[in-house]
Amino acid sequence: MARLRKGLLLVVSGPAGVGKGTVNAALMAKHPEIKMSVSATTRAPRPGEIDGVHYFFKTKEEFDRMIGENAFLEYMQVFGMNYYGTPKSFVESEREKGNHVILEIDVQGAMKVREACPDAVLVFIAPPSLKILKERLVGRGTETQESIDVRTATALEELKMLPKYDYMVINDVVEEAVGEMEAILTSELLRTERNTNLIMKLTGGETV
Amino acid sequence: MARLRKGLLLVVSGPAGVGKGTVNAALMAKHPEIKMSVSATTRAPRPGEIDGVHYFFKTKEEFDRMIGENAFLEYMQVFGMNYYGTPKSFVESEREKGNHVILEIDVQGAMKVREACPDAVLVFIAPPSLKILKERLVGRGTETQESIDVRTATALEELKMLPKYDYMVINDVVEEAVGEMEAILTSELLRTERNTNLIMKLTGGETV
Repeated sequence: MARLRKGLLLVVSGPAGVGKGTVNAALMAKHPEIKMSVSATTRAPRPGEIDGVHYFFKTKEEFDRMIGENAFLEYMQVFGMNYYGTPKSFVESEREKGNHVILEIDVQGAMKVREACPDAVLVFIAPPSLKILKERLVGRGTETQESIDVRTATALEELKMLPKYDYMVINDVVEEAVGEMEAILTSELLRTERNTNLIMKLTGGETV
Repeated sequence: MARLRKGLLLVVSGPAGVGKGTVNAALMAKHPEIKMSVSATTRAPRPGEIDGVHYFFKTKEEFDRMIGENAFLEYMQVFGMNYYGTPKSFVESEREKGNHVILEIDVQGAMKVREACPDAVLVFIAPPSLKILKERLVGRGTETQESIDVRTATALEELKMLPKYDYMVINDVVEEAVGEMEAILTSELLRTERNTNLIMKLTGGETV
């Protein structure tokens, strides 16, 4: 079907500690046709990081040129220092092959991607409750009380953006959340507006 | 979740011979929470038909009164004789319980239901090709050549309406079509606009 239908761009957001990395990794382990988007950054590579795998490492000049060429789905500057962005080229080339691309990104980034790419599918991974999210952060044993309070307050702000997403997946049991992500992928591929080539083929080119 | 979220109204169309009855029956056999909509009609019951199970049998006067009370999602008169309609009350009471309702209906009826019920989910069950649909009709051994030609021509007209539906499911292998219907149900229930109550609960009532 790859030639009849493009792959999907799945934009995934969710508060810190909700387990979106775990859900996405489990989903990709089952589906080799799903790829994780690779970001571009101006920060220096850390030991072991490979260009084109962990990030596309760019100089400030290269990054600026890409901005000028409208080569990003979205980009941002972190703490007035390094730039991070989502190059369009990777996402588009994978989708043209029929692969799906997951883009893990915060709510502000997700809104920019929706604007740049209206056929993106926006999924918010939510905790069963804020209380449970807090318990998970405490359970990590690596967060200070202050950090837990900040993350919980941020989580509430992020949850308020939920109505701007297409779908919400509650990460209570990981396997169930993965199953729901799979259902979203399957059904989005069945949307008539993603199958105009197939419809043209069925009707000999005529639709109303 | 029944109290947090209404069930779905699934409007299912597809050409004669495509196997939509088989797909829907298999889906309902797996999911007792899915109910088939019961139509109202002015025609006389046939032997064995039970009021409220096969149809709601109505007099012409009762049917007219229901039209006046805006009690139908859609209705039509067949061949200038009997009336058939979809009573809102059955669909709404099942959805309020958290059950899903399937409404098998032709493309004109589906368009009327979409207007009366904007949160309905419209699914078109399509054959892998018109050629295969024709082969299935021939395979039945009960259709005349003329009837096959008429049905194939009607099928093409119906397929042209595909872009007006939300989803298309190709009925090639029944089990796969059923799996796709299940994915549509699962993912539609995850749509943020169907979960405003849950979102309110998560955020303590605040959203942007």
